[in-house]
Amino acid sequence: MPGNTFGQLFKVTTFGESHGDVVGCVVDGCPPGIRISQNDIQTELDRRKPGKNHISSSRKEKDRVHIMSGIFKGETTGAPVIMVVHNKDVKTEDYSHLKNLYRPSHADFTFQKKYGIRDWRGGGRASARETVARVAAGAIAKKYLSEKEDVKFLTYVEQIQAIKGDIDYKKVNLKDIESSVVRCPDRGASQQMEKLLNKTQKEGDTLGGVVFGAIRNMPLGLGEPVFDKLSADLAKAMLSVGATRGFEYGSGFTGSGMKGSDHNDEFYVRGRKIKTRTNNSGGIQGGISNGEDVYFRVAFKPVSSFKKTQKTVDIKGREVSFQAGGRHDACIVPRAVPIIEAMASLVVIDHYLRNKAQNQ
Amino acid sequence: MPGNTFGQLFKVTTFGESHGDVVGCVVDGCPPGIRISQNDIQTELDRRKPGKNHISSSRKEKDRVHIMSGIFKGETTGAPVIMVVHNKDVKTEDYSHLKNLYRPSHADFTFQKKYGIRDWRGGGRASARETVARVAAGAIAKKYLSEKEDVKFLTYVEQIQAIKGDIDYKKVNLKDIESSVVRCPDRGASQQMEKLLNKTQKEGDTLGGVVFGAIRNMPLGLGEPVFDKLSADLAKAMLSVGATRGFEYGSGFTGSGMKGSDHNDEFYVRGRKIKTRTNNSGGIQGGISNGEDVYFRVAFKPVSSFKKTQKTVDIKGREVSFQAGGRHDACIVPRAVPIIEAMASLVVIDHYLRNKAQNQ
Amino acid sequence: MPGNTFGQLFKVTTFGESHGDVVGCVVDGCPPGIRISQNDIQTELDRRKPGKNHISSSRKEKDRVHIMSGIFKGETTGAPVIMVVHNKDVKTEDYSHLKNLYRPSHADFTFQKKYGIRDWRGGGRASARETVARVAAGAIAKKYLSEKEDVKFLTYVEQIQAIKGDIDYKKVNLKDIESSVVRCPDRGASQQMEKLLNKTQKEGDTLGGVVFGAIRNMPLGLGEPVFDKLSADLAKAMLSVGATRGFEYGSGFTGSGMKGSDHNDEFYVRGRKIKTRTNNSGGIQGGISNGEDVYFRVAFKPVSSFKKTQKTVDIKGREVSFQAGGRHDACIVPRAVPIIEAMASLVVIDHYLRNKAQNQ
Amino acid sequence: MPGNTFGQLFKVTTFGESHGDVVGCVVDGCPPGIRISQNDIQTELDRRKPGKNHISSSRKEKDRVHIMSGIFKGETTGAPVIMVVHNKDVKTEDYSHLKNLYRPSHADFTFQKKYGIRDWRGGGRASARETVARVAAGAIAKKYLSEKEDVKFLTYVEQIQAIKGDIDYKKVNLKDIESSVVRCPDRGASQQMEKLLNKTQKEGDTLGGVVFGAIRNMPLGLGEPVFDKLSADLAKAMLSVGATRGFEYGSGFTGSGMKGSDHNDEFYVRGRKIKTRTNNSGGIQGGISNGEDVYFRVAFKPVSSFKKTQKTVDIKGREVSFQAGGRHDACIVPRAVPIIEAMASLVVIDHYLRNKAQNQ
Repeated sequence: MPGNTFGQLFKVTTFGESHGDVVGCVVDGCPPGIRISQNDIQTELDRRKPGKNHISSSRKEKDRVHIMSGIFKGETTGAPVIMVVHNKDVKTEDYSHLKNLYRPSHADFTFQKKYGIRDWRGGGRASARETVARVAAGAIAKKYLSEKEDVKFLTYVEQIQAIKGDIDYKKVNLKDIESSVVRCPDRGASQQMEKLLNKTQKEGDTLGGVVFGAIRNMPLGLGEPVFDKLSADLAKAMLSVGATRGFEYGSGFTGSGMKGSDHNDEFYVRGRKIKTRTNNSGGIQGGISNGEDVYFRVAFKPVSSFKKTQKTVDIKGREVSFQAGGRHDACIVPRAVPIIEAMASLVVIDHYLRNKAQNQ
Repeated sequence: MPGNTFGQLFKVTTFGESHGDVVGCVVDGCPPGIRISQNDIQTELDRRKPGKNHISSSRKEKDRVHIMSGIFKGETTGAPVIMVVHNKDVKTEDYSHLKNLYRPSHADFTFQKKYGIRDWRGGGRASARETVARVAAGAIAKKYLSEKEDVKFLTYVEQIQAIKGDIDYKKVNLKDIESSVVRCPDRGASQQMEKLLNKTQKEGDTLGGVVFGAIRNMPLGLGEPVFDKLSADLAKAMLSVGATRGFEYGSGFTGSGMKGSDHNDEFYVRGRKIKTRTNNSGGIQGGISNGEDVYFRVAFKPVSSFKKTQKTVDIKGREVSFQAGGRHDACIVPRAVPIIEAMASLVVIDHYLRNKAQNQ
Repeated sequence: MPGNTFGQLFKVTTFGESHGDVVGCVVDGCPPGIRISQNDIQTELDRRKPGKNHISSSRKEKDRVHIMSGIFKGETTGAPVIMVVHNKDVKTEDYSHLKNLYRPSHADFTFQKKYGIRDWRGGGRASARETVARVAAGAIAKKYLSEKEDVKFLTYVEQIQAIKGDIDYKKVNLKDIESSVVRCPDRGASQQMEKLLNKTQKEGDTLGGVVFGAIRNMPLGLGEPVFDKLSADLAKAMLSVGATRGFEYGSGFTGSGMKGSDHNDEFYVRGRKIKTRTNNSGGIQGGISNGEDVYFRVAFKPVSSFKKTQKTVDIKGREVSFQAGGRHDACIVPRAVPIIEAMASLVVIDHYLRNKAQNQ
Repeated sequence: MPGNTFGQLFKVTTFGESHGDVVGCVVDGCPPGIRISQNDIQTELDRRKPGKNHISSSRKEKDRVHIMSGIFKGETTGAPVIMVVHNKDVKTEDYSHLKNLYRPSHADFTFQKKYGIRDWRGGGRASARETVARVAAGAIAKKYLSEKEDVKFLTYVEQIQAIKGDIDYKKVNLKDIESSVVRCPDRGASQQMEKLLNKTQKEGDTLGGVVFGAIRNMPLGLGEPVFDKLSADLAKAMLSVGATRGFEYGSGFTGSGMKGSDHNDEFYVRGRKIKTRTNNSGGIQGGISNGEDVYFRVAFKPVSSFKKTQKTVDIKGREVSFQAGGRHDACIVPRAVPIIEAMASLVVIDHYLRNKAQNQ
């Protein structure tokens, strides 16, 4: 490595393995004076937690967060905040038959070749369990942005396999999302998705999907021209999440099929503000937020672990068959929602702080 | 800023404005002993150059590169390489009627609000002219990777508006691409695209499209787990290019509609190597290259400058109408090909050097 | 912040406060395959530990390290290593009378003004207790460098107040140092220093001194020209330790009084190696190690906490008198030895990895 | 490398070789709206320029700076500023007899071994000519800090060889410094130094010395705890200048000989401000500026190039004798004054911007 740090001024370094002692993170660059309680973090972790319902992994983790530094009398002090979650429900025996083979489309092969060693227990560092740390860090970012600028993040499942919700994000609230087992606020689509997931789970297979994210009350001026565009950093943040395959914002891939005269977002004046009539720019122009809503989509592939028998190669180079075992989600997409939201918040807070540095 | 630097060990910092004296870059971290001639750089710049044919901007720039440091007796020395291209065919008068208004879907509004000042001449720093510097830096990266590891980059236009080429990248070579005016190696699609672009240009409008990129002979083990995944850094690199709206690699958004059992890439043994039968992973697993080809797509919106009359707001907050003027491409996508290729090469060389640091 | 990270490729981020739950660090960029046991770390921490003898703080901390990630079957995996030490012997009541005042020459005033809040318990983040984390990280660095290149670090107390040891570092070994209560390998000077410290402690006062460090078997070629010179990074590392006031390497301040013809280090050939007859360069030329021993000195001021009554100002701006209380060393310099050594090792390993990235 | 960049938010990357086309820098992170003229930069460059009097190198360089980007209508725009100085008076023939040998105490040997190649002309990248770029960047930093916070930098020669000025920096102004040929504001010492330098030059030898720097009207709160202390970054900045051997601030090495009760800086109230009666802390406590003056000293070794015959080894490993030739200063210390000042300003502006990012 070292590729375990995200951000330049709000720097999040995650650590820990799926079946090790802990997963967690250090947040360096936390502005002082943010009121943070254990509960602020726990609320977000609970959204991500496995074992909440029949469609997610049966791994039972309470995921209790321990804040061990950087908070004094309930407030951040400007010192690094370390948050740790202990791994409890570890069943390493589920993985012992896998330790000598490369599970297809997992990180086993590449880690082994890159490092000459790998912690094979539950996927080790490459496990989705690492995202606990991202969600914990995001909880701080979200609280800060909410209190300072009333920034709101709205994230939901738009699509699972071929089932696509018909959703206007402006009419959706958190309750609409969280009341759906699959976190899709289109009730009809949600029911179909749930049905499909149950069926798929029985078949021992898995599905992919698309997460939609919106950022409302976005401050104007965030993002740096050229390489550190807000859009570029969102893309990186999202593609850093395991199992993702694509990112688009604003008009996205659909915009590639439009004419310039249809695509341009005309400016007009509303009250004292300059607004755009349409928002094909997804709230970002020249890499910098223009004050409109930022919105984007993230594509997830189907989970690579499922019960069906698969063929692969072992570390001695022999072709073998195996069954995955372990406890897996039939579809990671609903549980990815708080992770995507956390990553979006980490991008925004970092650019928010960077922008402050250059205010006149 | 400062967001004008890309890379951690092969660090490229670009500078310059569209109608300023120069555009260029400093490359710090260039490994010593690479033979680099003016011509190596020029060849790549010539691929990007405007005014090459009837479908691109009529701005006439020879784009002669001057290498001013870091090369001694034809070889890199490990010192920073600075490359500068002088802006010659500058017609600032084309922009003087635009200086007080915010062109829709351009960076005028966000730059003005962020910085309180902007160089409005030809888009200033936000102009696509900045990409000259990226292509120059990429030329060094490509030469190094080619000589060290025989890495090959293959980049072409796959789609313009609704016209999509039917192309197997494994059967395409550079000549197939460069012999097409629109850089689409499917001859039939290429002709349709050209026709459509001519028509669109006459209408005073613009079009978007999709660029496809492949990296062959990709070394195994590049990319860092967690945040600096190869895929995440490719996403950032691509979304840092102006007018992009999306990025996908491997199965991409299509993969979201697949089942796990169809999507997984089965490992098998060929000779002494472990290969995958399919490549839905796009050559990247757990964020690290697995030795298969890396491939990806980048979505471009239609260019925001066109001749049709548009409405907008000026810097005094008055709603106004205007015509863009200036010299613009009806579609930036063909000229984006060498830029996307350059960005891919910058990602690969940076991870190549990072990986060397941790070899045992 | 964020200023809690040291290094670019071997990145150490420390966290924790003097009277909080823990102090510790995350090391990202640890090369894979280093055998590391709890004991390797503990040995170094024990050298730094307070309460070892009558001249150091009576705070009793076992300082047991817990390695919580990044080690699998006794070896580093390339994943971040987190090491945590729990604070046990915390007597916050010793500090409660200090919470509303600014102790002279401490960080109370600057932290309060910078952050608007401070963890006053035992100095919080500014406490020397933070260096536990540096020593733990340094233990890994030292083990790696020792096994790879047989690099040896030798660090001792050269001076306390006006008493200066007469020492040729080439004739000193670890036992000579560690067998002295004040870590001064000149036995006569050591005895005088000890006597002086006892006297000073009784007077309720404190003393400063100078630590000398040497790095033997230094690999050639470490350090980057211009800003990241090996000497510059050593200077930063050393001045980042609390209570330091100066750094010099090679001929140092004394060299300022020499003539060029006396100062230059003549090259000659020994066996197949090019060596220098003298070493006024301190093993570093043009910022890069030349294969000779690196050596340097670090100046420490006297500790700012002592029993004598002092005047100061409280947070309401009133002038007040106080006595420090708490448990403090009469002289931090002997205990600084393993800290200085740790910092030196962090500089060397980082440049070692950086240098690998650019090898041809 | 890449070690050619200084700073995190005000990032200065220098490039160019002594006998190449240019030396210069890119400044990324320049706050927008600073009025900068060619003249602002030139004034500082003229202070550093060689050939100004009989004691400095006879190389004749007008050192005209060209600002080629980032300034629009006389103001910074937030875009990278590139500044270039062309090398004119290049006499490479003076160095051709040196190209195959390693000059003692120069960077020839280490560059050759590290990179396998070196630009031997005039020292190439390791030449003091690189500091032109630092002074140019510092000119922007100084202007910004002066206009925003009235920060004043005062830098002079305190000592050459054994001659030490008796100077109270609080009573010195720029004119006192610049009116001395050796930049020592103690008139008597200045005359002795000049005499000694003339004598030394005739002998074909060189001398070292000490530069003193003070920063007045220093804003409170600059510097980040733990690793990025203001003092640590000053140390790094100063040791990154060629020919330096040591750095101290506040009481420095002398402070190591003091008692705590004499060394502590008592706080008191003056008007509405909290001040310290003494300033052994050199304006920095816990790594953060406390609003008092920052002051420090930098030790320079004697220049390594002089006319006396020397022995060394050539690149084929043969022991040889040579005479340096070229045009060199008998003492670099007077010309180092604007360089040290530039480096101090780069440290302060970077921490100033970093501090803004975390203001509440």
